[in-house]
This record gives sequence, structure tokens and C-alpha cells, in this order.
Amino acid sequence: MVSDPSALAQRIGEVTLVDHHVHGCWLAAGDLRRFENALNEANTEPSTGPGFDSQLGFAVRAHCGPVLGLPKHVDPQSYWEHRSRFSESELARMFLPAAGVSDWLVDTGIGADTAGPAGMAELSGGRAHEVVRLEEVAEQAAQAPGEYAAAFEEILALRAATAVGTKSILAYRGGFDGDLSEPSAAQVAEAAGRWRDSGGTRLRDRVLLRFGLHRALRLGKPLQFHVGLGDRDCDLHKTNPLLLLDFLRQSAGTPIVLLHCYPYEREAGYLAQAFDNVYLDGGLSVNQLGARSPAFVARLLELAPFRKILYSSDGFGPAELHFLGAALWRRAMQRVLGDFVADDDWSERDALRVVDLIAHDNAAGLYRL
Amino acid sequence: MVSDPSALAQRIGEVTLVDHHVHGCWLAAGDLRRFENALNEANTEPSTGPGFDSQLGFAVRAHCGPVLGLPKHVDPQSYWEHRSRFSESELARMFLPAAGVSDWLVDTGIGADTAGPAGMAELSGGRAHEVVRLEEVAEQAAQAPGEYAAAFEEILALRAATAVGTKSILAYRGGFDGDLSEPSAAQVAEAAGRWRDSGGTRLRDRVLLRFGLHRALRLGKPLQFHVGLGDRDCDLHKTNPLLLLDFLRQSAGTPIVLLHCYPYEREAGYLAQAFDNVYLDGGLSVNQLGARSPAFVARLLELAPFRKILYSSDGFGPAELHFLGAALWRRAMQRVLGDFVADDDWSERDALRVVDLIAHDNAAGLYRL
Amino acid sequence: MVSDPSALAQRIGEVTLVDHHVHGCWLAAGDLRRFENALNEANTEPSTGPGFDSQLGFAVRAHCGPVLGLPKHVDPQSYWEHRSRFSESELARMFLPAAGVSDWLVDTGIGADTAGPAGMAELSGGRAHEVVRLEEVAEQAAQAPGEYAAAFEEILALRAATAVGTKSILAYRGGFDGDLSEPSAAQVAEAAGRWRDSGGTRLRDRVLLRFGLHRALRLGKPLQFHVGLGDRDCDLHKTNPLLLLDFLRQSAGTPIVLLHCYPYEREAGYLAQAFDNVYLDGGLSVNQLGARSPAFVARLLELAPFRKILYSSDGFGPAELHFLGAALWRRAMQRVLGDFVADDDWSERDALRVVDLIAHDNAAGLYRL
Repeated sequence: MVSDPSALAQRIGEVTLVDHHVHGCWLAAGDLRRFENALNEANTEPSTGPGFDSQLGFAVRAHCGPVLGLPKHVDPQSYWEHRSRFSESELARMFLPAAGVSDWLVDTGIGADTAGPAGMAELSGGRAHEVVRLEEVAEQAAQAPGEYAAAFEEILALRAATAVGTKSILAYRGGFDGDLSEPSAAQVAEAAGRWRDSGGTRLRDRVLLRFGLHRALRLGKPLQFHVGLGDRDCDLHKTNPLLLLDFLRQSAGTPIVLLHCYPYEREAGYLAQAFDNVYLDGGLSVNQLGARSPAFVARLLELAPFRKILYSSDGFGPAELHFLGAALWRRAMQRVLGDFVADDDWSERDALRVVDLIAHDNAAGLYRL
Repeated sequence: MVSDPSALAQRIGEVTLVDHHVHGCWLAAGDLRRFENALNEANTEPSTGPGFDSQLGFAVRAHCGPVLGLPKHVDPQSYWEHRSRFSESELARMFLPAAGVSDWLVDTGIGADTAGPAGMAELSGGRAHEVVRLEEVAEQAAQAPGEYAAAFEEILALRAATAVGTKSILAYRGGFDGDLSEPSAAQVAEAAGRWRDSGGTRLRDRVLLRFGLHRALRLGKPLQFHVGLGDRDCDLHKTNPLLLLDFLRQSAGTPIVLLHCYPYEREAGYLAQAFDNVYLDGGLSVNQLGARSPAFVARLLELAPFRKILYSSDGFGPAELHFLGAALWRRAMQRVLGDFVADDDWSERDALRVVDLIAHDNAAGLYRL
Repeated sequence: MVSDPSALAQRIGEVTLVDHHVHGCWLAAGDLRRFENALNEANTEPSTGPGFDSQLGFAVRAHCGPVLGLPKHVDPQSYWEHRSRFSESELARMFLPAAGVSDWLVDTGIGADTAGPAGMAELSGGRAHEVVRLEEVAEQAAQAPGEYAAAFEEILALRAATAVGTKSILAYRGGFDGDLSEPSAAQVAEAAGRWRDSGGTRLRDRVLLRFGLHRALRLGKPLQFHVGLGDRDCDLHKTNPLLLLDFLRQSAGTPIVLLHCYPYEREAGYLAQAFDNVYLDGGLSVNQLGARSPAFVARLLELAPFRKILYSSDGFGPAELHFLGAALWRRAMQRVLGDFVADDDWSERDALRVVDLIAHDNAAGLYRL
């Protein structure tokens, strides 16, 4: 049935990726504790080690070690010692190009000590684009003179002019449940006054969060949502994307991209089928799941039409994560699509086309790269 | 361990099925857009193509193409062009018999342009039986003269006399959460008056929905519930069958059948273990999942006792779907039960018996066919 | 890659286990109905047979039959007849040692006719330790003279002095949703008065349940929570461990152990990553899932750090269950870890270490055995 069983594996191994949701890699040196904390997404306490004893820790040793010239599965201490011989920039110059990514879409809303889009482009040898975080725009508007709503719109328009999309971390600011309709101008003015009076930092006011979302809808550029897995500051059950249903029903015309999604990837796939403008990816989750990521990638390929699925690493901090996301995605796709073809459920030709869609075509079209 | 490794595969391939929840196939000609829309369960917008770019679209090309004499994995355009040479009745006369179904249990609550039970029997060469939709009975009672409750009961008794069961789409009319106890006669009369005054169409009144469910319980014939996956008019998170717990605690004596169930099939399996009168199936989901259906069928075989699991396609519209449900179920069972036996977790003898239970014995007993 | 492909399988087959959550096995003779009911976790109605027609029933015949000298997959009637030739103590003396368990941590809160810790030690030839059920302490305090809070604390201190941990069945007493903060002394006194006046049995008062949890937190010994799958007296959707988030945020310092977890094992794994003091296991679920348990064990190995995962059988009643939990866990770990190593995602050396962690090291450290 399959003309050459290795053709699909080769394509998946070599295909150029658009990493459509990523943060900057570190630029400054740090200690082992910082590194271990960066391997744990959910915990907000300082690492009490052994931070490598997880699927992600094992995957770093298995897949990142060889990029540094170490044997596969090298022990944690040797990995750390060897890594410490390089600066973060040197590490980035090894790991970022090894990811096989042509375009990085960088959420600039966090990470004072990490590379911005220009840095990511320079370190990787690829292109980089900005994604603007709505809650950061709000915090800038809170500090700006004049009316809040006008300031928000002006800052958003200015920043979005050179950006490819927007991003919301509503998941971390109370979650998705409750009213997400557009507030009135009077409600916004009142809420903004209250927030400014109390300092205007770390936006949690629901009226202003809703206002930002609806401004992003009008902007029309793809709007990314953090969904599911994150640190324990969020109530995970309030990040179920089904709680966005009423919002999605009002969102036609602006692409909505559901990020990460674990453990709600099946619900996200349903939404990607139900709404023409909904997309999803599995960034962050793939890294966290390591050897278990093929089962997750397989579930991403259930209800979502194949033109609605994107690739991302959600790398942040260690440049290992920007590379590992790609390495694990390639392995998972080889297993999952390889099995579909080996079982003659899919033709190899179809599998090759789906690889191209998810790797770059869908993102290139969506973000107009 | 296994006397003949192909005996199980052969039995699964040949076993006669009872398709215990299905709708009629199309009778009149239609265009490509209608066909593509029929491949997308969740979206209610008109297809903007490419409607074949999904697991279901790939599965149609893989498994339905050969029934029409086309090569496996034929391209979408060739599939559509070839299909267009036949009338819907001609297609039904090819696909329905190919499903290997002896009895079709037809939910007649939707589909003015689709075959009824008599048509399904004639087109397939099998037997057909009616399942009466409670919300349609309510809408008939709203238009009938006299007291609503009496009219409902009379129509239900009349229609159910020749039917094998009832069906509720409460999932689409507000979902499962909230009070599902039996309303008083006064509440029913008041709600019916209000509904009749406003036109008496598309029942959404909770009092009358609850009234219908409790009438169906008294009737004692199996009561089917749409659960989980459906179009976006329903709030998917309100179709979690665990929200039926209080209702199920009052339902002893009348079989309750949970349909489709994705992504709540594990919760449905729990309920099938917890209540003697609860059953489940995975119709619709198996078609939607295509190459991913074996993983789903495997989860249906977790907590539910094997005498509580049924087969259905939930086919509606294209006769492909009535066939594909059977084809994918057979493939999935071969993989899942084949692995159980190959790993010596189950004996082949047990596997053969479970095939017969799910394929027909459970349904034949439940619906007294 | 793997020096000896059978080394891992051999280690998993032979490794000594700590069964950190278990109940006593039966001591007195009983009939077939009692045995079949013991194979169904969720249903509370008397078995209407055939109780063996489930994954658990098949697994008993596959794995427990040979311990009694019967062929694998022996038919149910022969199994029952053969089993009936032995007393429950004789069965325990066969099944308990066959589990390969060095230490049994016995929840003594249910089972008047079952073995206590001393009995489990004597029948198995291993060690046994007590886990004190908080709701039983409450019921003892309700019957004690004097102030309720003081009585609770005195009884808890006395019983915990020789116990290794505590256990809560809050899941069965209204579930996890709602306020779980510490009540005031006045609230406790008032609630206790009310409860004592009404008889002081089967605690369901939320104030007193919360009081007990916070006393257990102060005690500092590991606190086990029944999570997920249980009988139908609980509302399964109210046992989602994410509903414990606020409680966990107040619990630092006292280990919290999430038991069973199906179908919320991915959510539990997230919590084990998010909180230094949260642990999880899959006892009960592994037995219930039988041939499907490898997929479940694989999901336990997703987000949870490997030092946070424990082994248990949750055996209760038939000594088969104490053995079967171990047998199915070993099979599942061989498949899951065997695949990780065969695919070169993990090294064999890492896999061997993770086996030791989950089998005994994590529990030995946590409970200070």
C-alpha cells in the first residue's frame, strides 16, 4: 500500500515549521534551580528538585542531550554541567536552528529577561513576528493619560499594526466562566476608574477583561487564548474551552486559536469543528507529556478538521524547550500518522498533505505570513 | 493460545448487527454542499469546504469508495463525481445492505426528506422499527385539541404501541443540568398554556420537557438520550451524562440508553455499571472519529458491563454513514478485541461472545425484537 | 539500546510493592451474590448476575484462576465452584502472598467482617499499618462525652499515634465543591450539637467534615482522599479533584494523596505537578479496568512527577482483589514502560528506577515505613 514506508517519516522529520505561539528564550545566565523550575509548568513554589524526574525532564535528557553532543539519556548532573559551559545565547544558537522553524510568533507579554522577536530571529536565523498580549495593553492603558477606552484602543492599534495577532490570558484572570459579553462604555469607564485608583496593575477586573476581548474581535487578527494546563494560579476547571461557547457564538469573522488545551483537547477539537473561525494547537502540552505525547497528538487529530490544527512549542526560557517541542511533535506525528498509513486507514498521500497543513500551511494562511 | 487468529476477525467481519439508533437516509438529490455539511456534525454554518478534510471525510474515501467500485482513498472530487451518477435510492441500495444490519431502529423525529422505517426496510432488505421522539410528541400535543397532558399521553400511547422505544433530545433543549423531577399536573397545565399561546413549536420549556421524560419512564420502553457530541446549538458541557444522576436514581425499571457519548464515554460507562437499567453506545462518534475510532471503542469497553453496550451508526442523510458506522465499528472491534486476545488478557471464546452481545444480542433483548 | 529486553520485565514482575491503600479481605464465608457484588464498584443494587461479564470479571478469571490451580480464562461457574472449596482465610493465604506486597496500609473505616491490620499481616506474611478514616473518628466523637471538638482531637491523636495516615471520604458526603475552609470553634460546636441531637451517625454535615480535614492537616501525616470512581451514592462529577484546588492551596506541609482518580486521573496528575505535597495513585481503577488498565496507567505517567505516584490495589472483600491489583499493575507497567524503552524514549536504567519509586520507594518515604 505504501510505496516507501520511510517517505512519510522523512517528510515529518524535515518539514519546516511555523511555531505560532512561543515566548523568548533566556538571555542571561542562571542557576540549576531556575532551570528545574522552568521544567515544571504548574508549580509556583521554588523547585525542591529533582526537577528532571518527570516526562519533560526525561525528554530533555533524551532529545536535547544529543544536540549538545551528549549521549542520549545522559544523567541529569552531566547534562546540567555540560549545559553550564555555554551561555544562554550560545545554547539558543544551537537549539533554535535545530528546531527547523522558519517563523516564530512571539507572545511578548512576559519575560523581561528573554529574547524579543528581533532576538529570536537573530538567534535562530529565522523570521519572527509579534503577538500582542491584551492584558499588557490594558496595563499600559491604565498608566496612560486620558480616557481608558481610548488609550486602550490607541495602544492596541499601534502595537497590532506590526503584529500578527493578539493573545488573552483570561484563563489566569478568573477563567472562562461567567458573562463574556461586551460591556457598555459607561461600565468600562467606571471599572477603569476603579482599577486606576487601585494602582492599575495585574488586571483582574472582568469588565475590562471583556472589553479587551471585544476590541480584539473588532481588530480581526487571530486572537489566541491560553486554554487548560498552566500554573496553579489558574483554576484549571475554569479553563475548559466549552465555557467559551457563548463568546465563540459572537465571534464570527475573527479567528480564535485555542492554545495548549490539555486536558481539554477533545473539547477544543469539538469547537474547531463547530465554528469556522476556531483553531487549536497542543503547544506546551507536547513538551510536558514527553514520551506520552503521541497519545495526546492523536487526540488532537479527532474532531478538528485538519485545516484547523496548528503547531507550536510554547517554549519559554531554556532554548531546549523551543527545540524539544518540534522534536517531540515530529516523533508523535511519525507514530500517529505512520500508524494511520500502516493500517491503510489513510493514504500516504493524504498523510503528507496533513503534515504540511499542520506544520506550516494552516499557520501561514491564518496569520498571513 | 488462540486456536485460529483469524476466527475472531472473521466473526467480527461477518456478524449481523442491530443498528439500534439511526435516522433515515436521503431520498432526494442534492448538491456537494449538502453532502459536505452532512459530514460535519457540530457546525451549523453552511460548509465553506473542503468538507472532506477531516477524519470522517478520509474514512468515507477509504471505506465507502470501494463499495462504489472506486479505489480506496480515491480523491474527493472523483468520489463526488462518481457518487453523483447514482440517485440517493440507488446509493442506499448499495450502502445499506453492505452494512450487514438485520434491524434498523429509526428515530423519526427529524428529516422530512429522509426514509422512514418502511423505506429503510425496503432499501436495505432488512427489518425496521420506529423510535418515537418525545419532543415531537410534545409538539403534536401542543397542536392537538383539549388538555395538553391528556393529548400527550394519548399520542404517546398511540405512537408507542408500534414503536420499540422513545428518544429525548433534552441535550439540545437546555441540557441536563437542573431539576429533572416530575412536575405537578398544575405546573404542566400552566406551562402548556404558555407554550401554546406562543405558538407551540420547538419545545424548550423545562416543565414540559420533564413531563415528557417522566411519561416515557412510565411507558417502560427503552428511553434513548442524546449525550455529548452534537451540533453547536447545544452546550456540550451541559450534556455530560453525570448531570443525569438524579434522574437516573428515579428511573429504575425503564431502560435508559445513552447515545454517542463523546467526550463523556467514560462517564457513561460508569453510569452503565452503576445502574442496572442504564445502557450506552458510541454511534455518531465512531463515524466522526474515523481512523481514531479504535481508541474510542476501547474506552467504551472500560467500566460498562458487556451486556450494557450496544451498536449504532446514528446514520442520517448520506447512506454512506449507515454503512460506515458498521465498517468502522468492525475495524475497531477487530483491533481492540484482537489485542485483548493476542495479549492473552481475554480468551478468544470470551471475545466471540462479547462480539455477539454488542452486535445484536443486547439490543435484541433490550428492545424485544 | 536495551542490554537485555527482559531485565525490565523481570524487575517489574518481581519488585516488592507497598500497597498504600487497601481494606481488609473477607474472613467469613459468603454466597455467589456477595462475590459478584464485590466485582461491581458503582452499583448499589443487589447483583442480578452475570457479574463476571465485565473487564474485572474477565481479569479475575484470567489472572486469579491460575493462583488456585485453574486454567487461565476458566469459566465463571468452575471458578466459583473451585473457589467455594476454600475458606476465605485459605484463599487469603494464597492470594495475599502472591501479590508480592511487603506492607499493607489498611483503611479500617469500613468492613466489620474483614481483616484488620493484624489479620492482613498474619494472612499475608507481610507487615500492616493502619490508616484512620476521619469520618469514623467524627462518629466516635459524636458518641463520646464532653465537647465534640476536644473529643475529636483526642480520639484522632490517640488513633493516629499508631497509624501512618488519615483518609477522608468527603467524596461520598456531598463531594468536593463548595467551601472547604476551616470553620470557627463556634460553628463546630453548633453543628456538633445539631448532629448529636439527630443521632450522630453517618456524618454529612459540611462544617464537621471541614473541621475534620483541617485537624488532619495539622496532624501532618499523609491525608488520603477518595477521588473519582466510587459507588453511585456519590455524584461523580463532584469528585473531580480540581474542586479541591482552594483546599490544596491551604494545605502546604501535609501530604495529600489522591486515590483511584478515574476518570479524573489527568486532572490529578496536574495537581501532583502543581503542588509539592500532592500525590496520586490509580488503585481500584486498575482492577475495574482489567485488560484496559495499561491505557490508564499510561495516563498516570503524564503530568505527575515520578516521585509523586504510588501503588495501591484498594482491595476490599475477596482476596482476589488484593492480588489482582498487583498482577494488573505489573502487566500494565511492563507494557507502558516496556514501550517507552523499546521506542528509546526512556533508557532502561531510568525505567528501572521509576519502577522502584512507584512500587515502594515513594510510599516508604511518604509514610515513613
